[in-house]
Amino acid sequence: MTYCVALNLAEGLVLASDTRTNAGVDHIATFGKMTVLEKPGQAVIVLMSAGNLGTTQSVLSLLRQRVGDDGLPEILQVPSLYEAAVKVGSLLREVIARDTAGGPQASGVDFGSSFLLAGQIAGEQTRLFHIYPQGNFIESTPDTPYFQIGEAKYGKPIIDRVVNHGTSLREAAKCVLISFDSTIRSNLSVGLPIDLALYRAGTLRVDNRQRITESDPYYQMIHQGWSQGLRDTFARLADPDWAH
Amino acid sequence: MTYCVALNLAEGLVLASDTRTNAGVDHIATFGKMTVLEKPGQAVIVLMSAGNLGTTQSVLSLLRQRVGDDGLPEILQVPSLYEAAVKVGSLLREVIARDTAGGPQASGVDFGSSFLLAGQIAGEQTRLFHIYPQGNFIESTPDTPYFQIGEAKYGKPIIDRVVNHGTSLREAAKCVLISFDSTIRSNLSVGLPIDLALYRAGTLRVDNRQRITESDPYYQMIHQGWSQGLRDTFARLADPDWAH
Repeated sequence: MTYCVALNLAEGLVLASDTRTNAGVDHIATFGKMTVLEKPGQAVIVLMSAGNLGTTQSVLSLLRQRVGDDGLPEILQVPSLYEAAVKVGSLLREVIARDTAGGPQASGVDFGSSFLLAGQIAGEQTRLFHIYPQGNFIESTPDTPYFQIGEAKYGKPIIDRVVNHGTSLREAAKCVLISFDSTIRSNLSVGLPIDLALYRAGTLRVDNRQRITESDPYYQMIHQGWSQGLRDTFARLADPDWAH
Repeated sequence: MTYCVALNLAEGLVLASDTRTNAGVDHIATFGKMTVLEKPGQAVIVLMSAGNLGTTQSVLSLLRQRVGDDGLPEILQVPSLYEAAVKVGSLLREVIARDTAGGPQASGVDFGSSFLLAGQIAGEQTRLFHIYPQGNFIESTPDTPYFQIGEAKYGKPIIDRVVNHGTSLREAAKCVLISFDSTIRSNLSVGLPIDLALYRAGTLRVDNRQRITESDPYYQMIHQGWSQGLRDTFARLADPDWAH
């Protein structure tokens, strides 16, 4: 399984994915389940994926393969990130249609994949899309500034409680690590290391990527501090007086 | 949807379910998705259910309908709670087989239901079973003293962090309410009030039931205190220094 989360905030984007299984490599810039495509100064597109690995890899392969005159993937030439989401959705349908055309042998296998697509195209704000296995998609808004895919539920409550559109990138990065910590603790299929990318709106370049391992001192501090803080809060709250 | 949780601890059982949809009434003792069957001094059996409402209701109707000489459901005469789990699993298969016998018209509908079955039979310890839609089941152990059904993931991390087999009923009740609070906050399909039953091992009588509504002062304190505690803990943890 997988856990990916993307936040589109006033200051920029916070993107994170786990790495328990790998979804292929990319010659431009990829690590784990996160694929970063960029043409500095013009376009930054980050994709994170969950679901059928064959489908995911094919979509990414086709995206990389279809290059423009500059040798970079054509998708980096879109005039708007919306068009990039349309392209990925369309590729996703194409791959699933191809792979399920065989008929009977496809039965019982889920060929679906979901993508989070985030980034910025020169002239636009940062944008974030959640692309469904059907190829259609939704976009984040200031009211709903984040999307998750994969094992999303364990780590959702903490994001709901502390993140809003005005949250700083620093605080959001901290919250995302806590969200991963809660998920990893409750679900064996999501594991360290975590790939994290921070993108400051307007820079048109992803220059802050972290691979957070188990021995990362900051992650250890979050892991222990959060656990201790929850226990302390729990202990401070009175027990119910009707529980005799 | 539904959220139910059951904890089988050294001191006894803590059982809780939400009530956003109702799963029928029971002339013996039922409220919401929780059905309490008891023969004081001899047997206490509590059932909580999630899944297809038609299936759930039929299983409960058949359980109530099959009464012994004392006018109480036959299931209360089992020599062991294990036999009760076998009976419920068997009834579940019977109902699903009957309702899906039609063939084509059943397609696309999920007839499955899950049950949590907890209680005590005179001469045994308290026991807790998770019965799957297939009718088979697993039993809790001191290492894994709790089960959840329905929208279980949002509220799992807090239970994993603070509950073990030795946790008191009071503390476990508090933890269960926090678990519900996290779930309700992140998932619209789970709603108040919460039905809560505490059973102290050896008493062979359920004498502590609470229906927790939104205006319940203890729940309000938990709701606000937990939220504030999380925010305080979050604020106290340092931001990552690489997040510039």
